[in-house]
Amino acid sequence: MISFASDYVAGAHPEVLKRLVETNMDILTGYGTDTYTLSAAEKIKKACNCPDAEVFLISGGTQTNQLVISTMLQPYEGVISASTGHINVHEAGAVEYTGHKVLSIPSHDGKVVSGELKDYIKAFYSDESHTHMVFPGMLYISFPTEYGTIYSKQELTDIYNVCREYDISLFIDGARLGYGLASKKCDITLPELAKLCDVFYIGGTKVGALCGEAVVFTGKAPKHFETQIKQHGALLAKGRLNGVQFDALFTDDLYMKISKHAIEMADKLISLFRERGYEFFLDSPTNQQFVIFNNKKLKDLEGKVGFSLWEPYDGEHTVVRFATSWSTTDDEIEELKKLL
Amino acid sequence: MISFASDYVAGAHPEVLKRLVETNMDILTGYGTDTYTLSAAEKIKKACNCPDAEVFLISGGTQTNQLVISTMLQPYEGVISASTGHINVHEAGAVEYTGHKVLSIPSHDGKVVSGELKDYIKAFYSDESHTHMVFPGMLYISFPTEYGTIYSKQELTDIYNVCREYDISLFIDGARLGYGLASKKCDITLPELAKLCDVFYIGGTKVGALCGEAVVFTGKAPKHFETQIKQHGALLAKGRLNGVQFDALFTDDLYMKISKHAIEMADKLISLFRERGYEFFLDSPTNQQFVIFNNKKLKDLEGKVGFSLWEPYDGEHTVVRFATSWSTTDDEIEELKKLL
Amino acid sequence: MISFASDYVAGAHPEVLKRLVETNMDILTGYGTDTYTLSAAEKIKKACNCPDAEVFLISGGTQTNQLVISTMLQPYEGVISASTGHINVHEAGAVEYTGHKVLSIPSHDGKVVSGELKDYIKAFYSDESHTHMVFPGMLYISFPTEYGTIYSKQELTDIYNVCREYDISLFIDGARLGYGLASKKCDITLPELAKLCDVFYIGGTKVGALCGEAVVFTGKAPKHFETQIKQHGALLAKGRLNGVQFDALFTDDLYMKISKHAIEMADKLISLFRERGYEFFLDSPTNQQFVIFNNKKLKDLEGKVGFSLWEPYDGEHTVVRFATSWSTTDDEIEELKKLL
Amino acid sequence: MISFASDYVAGAHPEVLKRLVETNMDILTGYGTDTYTLSAAEKIKKACNCPDAEVFLISGGTQTNQLVISTMLQPYEGVISASTGHINVHEAGAVEYTGHKVLSIPSHDGKVVSGELKDYIKAFYSDESHTHMVFPGMLYISFPTEYGTIYSKQELTDIYNVCREYDISLFIDGARLGYGLASKKCDITLPELAKLCDVFYIGGTKVGALCGEAVVFTGKAPKHFETQIKQHGALLAKGRLNGVQFDALFTDDLYMKISKHAIEMADKLISLFRERGYEFFLDSPTNQQFVIFNNKKLKDLEGKVGFSLWEPYDGEHTVVRFATSWSTTDDEIEELKKLL
Repeated sequence: MISFASDYVAGAHPEVLKRLVETNMDILTGYGTDTYTLSAAEKIKKACNCPDAEVFLISGGTQTNQLVISTMLQPYEGVISASTGHINVHEAGAVEYTGHKVLSIPSHDGKVVSGELKDYIKAFYSDESHTHMVFPGMLYISFPTEYGTIYSKQELTDIYNVCREYDISLFIDGARLGYGLASKKCDITLPELAKLCDVFYIGGTKVGALCGEAVVFTGKAPKHFETQIKQHGALLAKGRLNGVQFDALFTDDLYMKISKHAIEMADKLISLFRERGYEFFLDSPTNQQFVIFNNKKLKDLEGKVGFSLWEPYDGEHTVVRFATSWSTTDDEIEELKKLL
Repeated sequence: MISFASDYVAGAHPEVLKRLVETNMDILTGYGTDTYTLSAAEKIKKACNCPDAEVFLISGGTQTNQLVISTMLQPYEGVISASTGHINVHEAGAVEYTGHKVLSIPSHDGKVVSGELKDYIKAFYSDESHTHMVFPGMLYISFPTEYGTIYSKQELTDIYNVCREYDISLFIDGARLGYGLASKKCDITLPELAKLCDVFYIGGTKVGALCGEAVVFTGKAPKHFETQIKQHGALLAKGRLNGVQFDALFTDDLYMKISKHAIEMADKLISLFRERGYEFFLDSPTNQQFVIFNNKKLKDLEGKVGFSLWEPYDGEHTVVRFATSWSTTDDEIEELKKLL
Repeated sequence: MISFASDYVAGAHPEVLKRLVETNMDILTGYGTDTYTLSAAEKIKKACNCPDAEVFLISGGTQTNQLVISTMLQPYEGVISASTGHINVHEAGAVEYTGHKVLSIPSHDGKVVSGELKDYIKAFYSDESHTHMVFPGMLYISFPTEYGTIYSKQELTDIYNVCREYDISLFIDGARLGYGLASKKCDITLPELAKLCDVFYIGGTKVGALCGEAVVFTGKAPKHFETQIKQHGALLAKGRLNGVQFDALFTDDLYMKISKHAIEMADKLISLFRERGYEFFLDSPTNQQFVIFNNKKLKDLEGKVGFSLWEPYDGEHTVVRFATSWSTTDDEIEELKKLL
Repeated sequence: MISFASDYVAGAHPEVLKRLVETNMDILTGYGTDTYTLSAAEKIKKACNCPDAEVFLISGGTQTNQLVISTMLQPYEGVISASTGHINVHEAGAVEYTGHKVLSIPSHDGKVVSGELKDYIKAFYSDESHTHMVFPGMLYISFPTEYGTIYSKQELTDIYNVCREYDISLFIDGARLGYGLASKKCDITLPELAKLCDVFYIGGTKVGALCGEAVVFTGKAPKHFETQIKQHGALLAKGRLNGVQFDALFTDDLYMKISKHAIEMADKLISLFRERGYEFFLDSPTNQQFVIFNNKKLKDLEGKVGFSLWEPYDGEHTVVRFATSWSTTDDEIEELKKLL
């Protein structure tokens, strides 16, 4: 069965897997002190053109979000997020588990708007009783968002300016960062993005790795961050697992190459759906496509192609997500063509 | 200066204070095991017609909300609240501090609507990925609400039925419970309210005491609740302070008598504002009145009468709260009359 | 029945209660912004000769310990305490509830020894894997200790020097501070103590108040401390309750006067026990006396005098605590004399 | 350079890696619902002879300890551990981070003694003020311990009987479980161990996998455990990573085969050290050997062989850990022979 259910249906990109095999019997030190982890960090800093950054490799996205948010916030602070933000909906309360409120503001196809962000913060500080409220301490956005949309350079600049004006940090969840940067609609590069936030992560799990996200603190990491990783149970003894994979992903531009492939496949998907007269729930320029399906047709497709039910559209239609990834093939697109 | 700024501007009701003085040199055991605390609990159970209830006296409202919510929820659960609920806005994230998300649903003049509650819970369980989301484990409502409104018996019954259908507990924040029950619009009694929820508290701080809220678990309290009170730093060594006060408040119906007085004063306030042509932000039948003021007039009043700025109404007007309490006098109403 | 069971068996000192009565109908602002709270803070700063200190009034001891420790520690830090420290034994895990480990070191009659403290911290930093361990971030001591003992000026100086050498803060739990400072064996004054730590609290609950502890940050308080008090559920709406009491306690040296009375009563207690041939479990110069009792004798005393069972001594004897306080009278001592 | 620094110096066992390669392009569902995870769980239940067990695969040991302990304890409970237990020393306070105290009792070469456990719990319940203390809710032990020692069947039975008598759960940290079960001194089998506790985990990271620990709840898992895994940030999107590895480890008895190899290598190591006249710090029958080294000799070895400094022995000697694993070869032992 072919599947567009998500961007984590296959294992690792063959090149990544190959490096895991080749390095398997190397004798290495543990807990992220091995040579591959160090090399990966250097390559990432170079790719970000951010020589003073601090880079840490964490196993998964929710883990990373929880760690970054809880270690960067003060106890009296919460994190602002679009109402549709992953941390606000689909992480089982992982942020609240660490004692911090998610302060939700409106979502526009998954995105936050700088003006509304500013209004929110201004309203907070002008409230007479704001010392009895949760201080906004950070803005969380995802790039691309949970709806596949991306911020333009101008939008991100405006947002970051608001953050700096009110001295709150900006954290970009890049679980699918490659698929955002590789989008034809994207007018921003990795080094530019690194300059427009305080911390972000480069998603591996969904972009070619078996697991792993690379957190990049563009300035200083929270003090004793390694100890806090350990405290969260997130420090792998065999840090090599993340190290080797990211070292491979950032060798010969592999990360962006495979990201571009996923975008090419997504473009084919878009063309296919358009040809067949499907309507899109929204306009996504990245690897996740949200298509409105007749429920009867969905029934037909069951067991023949994998997809994700997103949300009901109306009584007879459903929003369905189709995702491509580095592993999507032309054959799969062709197969889907036959089924639609 | 007269003040309608809140219902906690004066100390204790004279009768309550008198009992503190009379019992001051009694030799008593600590940590809530004293005779007055036990007597207060018995009187409260009787007033609630709930002989099997478990009653605990806690010093303040936020403390109580935090304790009840965190001890009744499972780790994977959050608490549903109207977006305007005190726990969602003005408690500095006290619930999230304990690891639980506040799940906000729409507020209708401070109230939750049973239909929307049901829709929220149904949508949760029908979501394919709900195991990656925060389970609704409790509903929090306030009676009266933060906007002075109250639920009818039918509304509360409908809400509680939804809670029972989905096996979530219902917690009623009664910081101003007396002022709700004493309202002429209230069609519910204390024993009836006790039957329509799993836990509620009878506010003392705002209704005649120096401090203290009486939590009533209508069924079983969470196991080792006393230890959990201690763990939250909420167990007073001199439990007598809360005990004597609640014993006084529940002797000779004092609690309801002084609550009724506040409502009579509120009715006079309403008449006065109406006479003078003021508009109300919403219709509140209890001790908190939300009045729309011209900003110029507000400037005039500053320093002459105490009130609370609630929220901007438009560029030239502001919503202002005037609260009465057990301590409000006719003289204060007369004084205000001269100022309006 | 007379009682030496604890120093919180009676209500408030009459002078404190009188002020609560006199100020009861004053119209005051809430949440610790009232004039009495401000006045109390000023008087306390003066008594401590610490004009730049920041003072906050909290309702109880465990609440205070939890608040101070959790807001001053970084997430990766724990608090060092004598194994017998109140936070390590009798606070139901209130510190751990906030996410921090209590790092226990040996207790010498309730006290920490500076040399052992230094050894502990040195061993930590010389451990190869200390980044996988809990960093020592604060030292907690009690003055007097849970066993009634007190630190000499030299001992406290030595301890504070170790803290400064390793950049950890020193927090002194002064639940019974007055009874320590009033001891004839005490060679330290309140202003001196304030210079030898980063934060301490002046206990009210056990020294003349119905409730309340005054936290004194000798330097800066944690940022937005008021918001964090609220977040912990520890901010009283009627802050006047603590304010008026501490204002009274720090007027005309009342706090020290009543502390001295308790010490005089304790000295009479010591003489009495010595006369009757009782042995002391340890030498306490303050208001708590730990006496070794034959279990048969204890049975006889039951119901005639209040005391606290501390710990088994041997098969036939038990360590029993007798505590005096501001409320202990000569008559009670005489009554006890007849019973021994 | 050869290394005995730890049992996580190499990657995955070749057979495990081979399966990762073979299954890499399989299209699989996420979050632990894939066929390999399900198959692994079945094989593990069979190996444990525990058909009703619930099995979950988690990425690392600290993560697992934190998850199991925090989800099985009630808020008012702590976990008892030997003072030397990993959770008490080397996990950066991961348990306390979740709000629970580690209640430390004496360690005997890493082991807990049933009599002392019983004394501890009895003393707790007989303490008059135990409701102000942290309730013992679970016993944590490691098998083998941090010092390589193991419990006999009788010892474990005695310990479990105490746990059942006082209704606390028993959790066995099996980070190195294979190396314990494979020891010639071990008189207990996997199915027997499963019957003598409530939950344990089968360590993969140190026994042939790149990462992963298999938690086995011998009865019911905590409710909505999957949601709690997600909430802790511990749910891998590509659950296949753990699934395939454990499926391989529990095919054809691979887990025990490679464990036995490590023990054979350890026996050779013991013989070698004995031949050369080295003294052991303690008698370990498993893959970790603690040897007393002259500090000068250690300096000589630096850069030639990997080992772990454990703790100072005296001014001139140090306790050093040498660990074997599935990857240790005869050549390495020979090489070490030349160096000693």
